[in-house]
Amino acid sequence: MWRDLLPVGRHPDSRGYRRFAWTGADAECRDWFREQAEARGLVHELDRNGNQWAWLGDPEAGDAVVTGSHLDSVPDGGAFDGPLGVVSSFAALDELLARGVRFTKPLAVVNFGDEEGARFGLACVGSRLTAGRLTAEQAHRLTDGDGVTLPQAMEAAGHDPDAIGADPERLARIGAFVELHVEQGRALDLSGDRVGVASAIWPHGRWRFDFRGEANHAGTTRLTDRRDPMLSYAETVLAARREAELAGAVATFGKISVEPNGVNAIPSLVRGWLDSRAADQDTLDTVVAGVEKAARAYADAHGVDLDVVRESFTPVVEFDHALRDELARILGRDAGLTVPVLGTGAGHDAGILADRVPTAMLFVRNPTGVSHSPAEHAAEDDCLAGVSALADVLEGLACT
Amino acid sequence: MWRDLLPVGRHPDSRGYRRFAWTGADAECRDWFREQAEARGLVHELDRNGNQWAWLGDPEAGDAVVTGSHLDSVPDGGAFDGPLGVVSSFAALDELLARGVRFTKPLAVVNFGDEEGARFGLACVGSRLTAGRLTAEQAHRLTDGDGVTLPQAMEAAGHDPDAIGADPERLARIGAFVELHVEQGRALDLSGDRVGVASAIWPHGRWRFDFRGEANHAGTTRLTDRRDPMLSYAETVLAARREAELAGAVATFGKISVEPNGVNAIPSLVRGWLDSRAADQDTLDTVVAGVEKAARAYADAHGVDLDVVRESFTPVVEFDHALRDELARILGRDAGLTVPVLGTGAGHDAGILADRVPTAMLFVRNPTGVSHSPAEHAAEDDCLAGVSALADVLEGLACT
Repeated sequence: MWRDLLPVGRHPDSRGYRRFAWTGADAECRDWFREQAEARGLVHELDRNGNQWAWLGDPEAGDAVVTGSHLDSVPDGGAFDGPLGVVSSFAALDELLARGVRFTKPLAVVNFGDEEGARFGLACVGSRLTAGRLTAEQAHRLTDGDGVTLPQAMEAAGHDPDAIGADPERLARIGAFVELHVEQGRALDLSGDRVGVASAIWPHGRWRFDFRGEANHAGTTRLTDRRDPMLSYAETVLAARREAELAGAVATFGKISVEPNGVNAIPSLVRGWLDSRAADQDTLDTVVAGVEKAARAYADAHGVDLDVVRESFTPVVEFDHALRDELARILGRDAGLTVPVLGTGAGHDAGILADRVPTAMLFVRNPTGVSHSPAEHAAEDDCLAGVSALADVLEGLACT
Repeated sequence: MWRDLLPVGRHPDSRGYRRFAWTGADAECRDWFREQAEARGLVHELDRNGNQWAWLGDPEAGDAVVTGSHLDSVPDGGAFDGPLGVVSSFAALDELLARGVRFTKPLAVVNFGDEEGARFGLACVGSRLTAGRLTAEQAHRLTDGDGVTLPQAMEAAGHDPDAIGADPERLARIGAFVELHVEQGRALDLSGDRVGVASAIWPHGRWRFDFRGEANHAGTTRLTDRRDPMLSYAETVLAARREAELAGAVATFGKISVEPNGVNAIPSLVRGWLDSRAADQDTLDTVVAGVEKAARAYADAHGVDLDVVRESFTPVVEFDHALRDELARILGRDAGLTVPVLGTGAGHDAGILADRVPTAMLFVRNPTGVSHSPAEHAAEDDCLAGVSALADVLEGLACT
């Protein structure tokens, strides 16, 4: 099952995955999902928002236990982020059927569409639409880097873009949603555990820092006559690292745009994007305020103007405490261990659904913490431990 | 004359000029040059490399005095860099004819093609080809940002790309070349002079710094687990400023390229270009070695790999001492003043020709030093002083 999926959308040079929403690679992933569903006699559904569901039992019965994740990728992403959750869901179902358990609730495996937002710039489009946290009108305005709109891309892939929108009836069927995901940090590696339970998704946001100076000739302009925004940008990058270290948070400048971006021109504009996340809102506010204060002082010192714009913000997502504790109890009982409960800095479909249905997440150990990269990895033993943990959880939730 | 040229290739939003080689704006500038030549009864020639010449007297007679500059621009450049030299050449000729002088040597005004290299990435293509410092084969490989090759662009503009190449016969006609140019620094402003004579063009080069780290998730990767190349890039930008300050040189990081350049991704690669120039070779070597040493230390500290590649290098250009002294004598005699002699960090067609024919440059005061920007400016009085100085120089050289 894993082997069939591995070559899909993999770039021959980078060895990374390029499975972007509504592309050919995405269609191949969807075909794979449908085949997995049909091979197990599950009922395959494609919902109005392009999410795929594979049902065991009557979807209309209500109080369903749903598990799954996504199959799309970031540009040159790894094999595990997303697919591990979907593959483990089918594998856990196989294990439960092999155990001969009797389900008292309907069960479904889900593949949420366009989780990474690599093509249209917004993450979790499939789950956001379903949860009513993105309207059809907003989604219709999304455009990819080539100027193709989301409706055009959907139509080209044979999906009706006029059908998209909130789907409360579908959410109302779900009693619990559990997403298994490869950990994207090293907490489990450091604690020596194969599997953990998520406590919360850290609050996070993106801020755009526009440093505006004066374009000038790099060869003839005396240093003292310059208003070079690259200098204040560089100082701000280092300030962000310091502030994050002090606060125990993370802060990253990973994207930059420079005008005119010429080798022999002092830039007129350096635009840098800050991504910052912390365990709680106060800490995040402290970090961002510290970076902005430092950036303003640097900009003033160089005669550079600074605008800071918050482009997006997601408050903390606390997963359902009862479900989280239930998962820890189920896993701890079988393993005879205390299961680690950990926060995460990454967004997930589970985070989008968390205030609509009881939601939880399982993490599988990542020995290097590397993610969103071809080097992303999880050991086979840890993946099998994840399947077994997910099977225990599904049995505990759906066979009561 | 100046007014006719002002609107050509000017962008309505930025108010900067976009006169790139072999484009429509370039063709309009060339039409303007031909009209100026014909209006004065000068013989217009377009040479094999796309440079334009306007001759007074017999080009074949030899020992010609040539003056001129270029009409193309950097992206969003100013009105003066280039055109001031061409316009002043025609104006100085008008002034000499009004003075009723009698020329004993042929005289020409030249417009060198593609001086800025804004489109194909290499500066001074017209003069390089003519001087045999760029071969036709090398020039045929030049490609613009849209994938259009130089031969394709030439053909589209009606110029035969197979005709280009070294033109020693043309250079052999020239006894002296004098280029007038707006100063691109503030030396004349600080000394209180309207016009100066160039001593030398500083040695300068471009170095590419490739910082390679590890792409990773910006939300979930602990600071201590990161190999973030943006940090060592930022530290290197600041080191370049410090080294240049210490040495009395200039150093600029004005161009950057980042992979994957995503807001939520720690970069795998940050590629920054260093432009550095100094009054002499030893100083330049010291600056670049200092920046590279600092960059290696920063890269090591962050677990980042660093490659430094020298992409281009131009040694110091000393202008012909006899001609330089002659210009200073002519100008000092008329003005009753000591004429300032100054070095420059900018490249020019005059620098390309300097080891082929006796060459000199005149600079006109720039009150802010701003250049390669829509804000580039020279006062009308200073421009008129430049025309008068150029007329004196041409009279002194061509009427002996």
